[in-house]
Amino acid sequence: MRIAVDLLGGDNAPAVVVDGALRACGADPELHLLLVGPPETADEVFAALRPAQRDRVSVRPVSRAVGMADAPTVATRTDTTVRAAVAAVAEGAADAVVSAGASGATVTAAVLGLRRWPEVRHPALVASLPAVHGPVVLLDVGGSLEARPTTLARHAILGAAYAAVVHGIARPRVGLLSIGVEPGKGDRVRRAADPLLAAVALPGDATYVGLVEGYDIGIGDRADVVVTDGFTGNVLLKGIEGAYAMAGGPPSAGGVPRAAALLGVPGTVVVCHGAADGADVASGIALAAHLHRRGVTRTVAALLADSAEVTA
Amino acid sequence: MRIAVDLLGGDNAPAVVVDGALRACGADPELHLLLVGPPETADEVFAALRPAQRDRVSVRPVSRAVGMADAPTVATRTDTTVRAAVAAVAEGAADAVVSAGASGATVTAAVLGLRRWPEVRHPALVASLPAVHGPVVLLDVGGSLEARPTTLARHAILGAAYAAVVHGIARPRVGLLSIGVEPGKGDRVRRAADPLLAAVALPGDATYVGLVEGYDIGIGDRADVVVTDGFTGNVLLKGIEGAYAMAGGPPSAGGVPRAAALLGVPGTVVVCHGAADGADVASGIALAAHLHRRGVTRTVAALLADSAEVTA
Repeated sequence: MRIAVDLLGGDNAPAVVVDGALRACGADPELHLLLVGPPETADEVFAALRPAQRDRVSVRPVSRAVGMADAPTVATRTDTTVRAAVAAVAEGAADAVVSAGASGATVTAAVLGLRRWPEVRHPALVASLPAVHGPVVLLDVGGSLEARPTTLARHAILGAAYAAVVHGIARPRVGLLSIGVEPGKGDRVRRAADPLLAAVALPGDATYVGLVEGYDIGIGDRADVVVTDGFTGNVLLKGIEGAYAMAGGPPSAGGVPRAAALLGVPGTVVVCHGAADGADVASGIALAAHLHRRGVTRTVAALLADSAEVTA
Repeated sequence: MRIAVDLLGGDNAPAVVVDGALRACGADPELHLLLVGPPETADEVFAALRPAQRDRVSVRPVSRAVGMADAPTVATRTDTTVRAAVAAVAEGAADAVVSAGASGATVTAAVLGLRRWPEVRHPALVASLPAVHGPVVLLDVGGSLEARPTTLARHAILGAAYAAVVHGIARPRVGLLSIGVEPGKGDRVRRAADPLLAAVALPGDATYVGLVEGYDIGIGDRADVVVTDGFTGNVLLKGIEGAYAMAGGPPSAGGVPRAAALLGVPGTVVVCHGAADGADVASGIALAAHLHRRGVTRTVAALLADSAEVTA
């Protein structure tokens, strides 16, 4: 289990990434980390590790970062930490990549370095949120920002597959996020997408339940998977996070995740919140390890290919 | 203070509207209600009122409802309760209108019955949310659903005026909701809107602070007014509501409001949540009374006209 970690990604990099890497090493004895960044930063990690842990960490020296304010296109440069971390996965030197850098840059790097699955034009970032009635899988939370009906339909398949494989939900119920539950509610994109989602072949025993509302994400009794465009999903995820802060803290079942999985590329890619702290980075690394151990990327890809074949 | 109340609007009409009307009458002795709906439903209100309260309630008999699943265009019919309630305001028989019916239908009825302000093509629904650092004004929460840069710029003016007039905020800080705070973050619409909001003349001493994130709505330390399209705002409002339900209840400062004010038409119009209960309808009526007493609609219109003149 080898995770490539982007040492220079995030608002508070590299300090929080160093902290997160140390926490991850301590928590999971099977974990090997490939630290991608300046050697002097990697040295901080080595210095803080117990000698027995040091052979579980290696370094790929890269010193150029993609800043949080940079355009995602900066990640087209192969000499950036995020591109180099993705390249390690593409070459087989790592099993997964974790970055707390700008999500647009990470998606760009992943698409360039790993290519896309043939069925997916717009990869999705997927987050699992605790809800009253079990976890709710929300996507897209920022992988692609423009709302398109066909993308929403494709993401419904990805989300259903993810819910089945990662959360073991036998018959995932998939809803399309809108402003009301009655058919016809929503903007032009949602009204066009609703019949597409109803017609698409969802994997396994997943079913499309129609339109759902923002409220349903906190409750989880109407849908296990909520599909929306990456702009709305990202705003909503952070809005829920702010609501928990306002309410005095996250619920006991857990707060809003600070890491999301990228679906649509042949490799395990996890994006952490730009404002991630060390614990968040460690949980992003743990998520990447979990996804890789469960073979999630491969299984979701296979389910998607089956669905696409049935639909075509 | 005369409020026209749509007896047949909402998921649980007329029962919750009757309940809300009774609560409102009990709470505010200056209130007069014009009940717009079936006479037999209005009779329930009369029967439950104390004799001394009965002369504060009158009836406009209308029996056709716009259902929650109906297209907003059904509200073009003048024989619907929501159109008739708006007509009462247009004729001067009422000072404000309150409906818990589908917001699209209420907006349609308001625009047809009252016309729009010349500067406003797309009226906005405005909600005030409690946040850690005082109230945050969020708009649009469902008045118009398609995201357009020019609409967002116009709504920035409306929101700033509303924050100043309703919440007495001396120098409202206005932010544009996006997926990151760095310039350039967001979808195509947000990237186009950001410079428009920076260039628009905001009323009074309001300032544009640039991009904000969903998190900022719960915190309120970066912006007093958060501008977004009606689809995203509606989803977010309900998402925050679901988060509070998940967190075990709304914060002590208050939960998500179940009533929103419509800005952009020459009249006081309040839309309650379709799933409103009696207390929600009563608080919608109280909001309408408050807005009318403060002359909010007129003052916001004047501030908008000033800003439009400066910008033009």
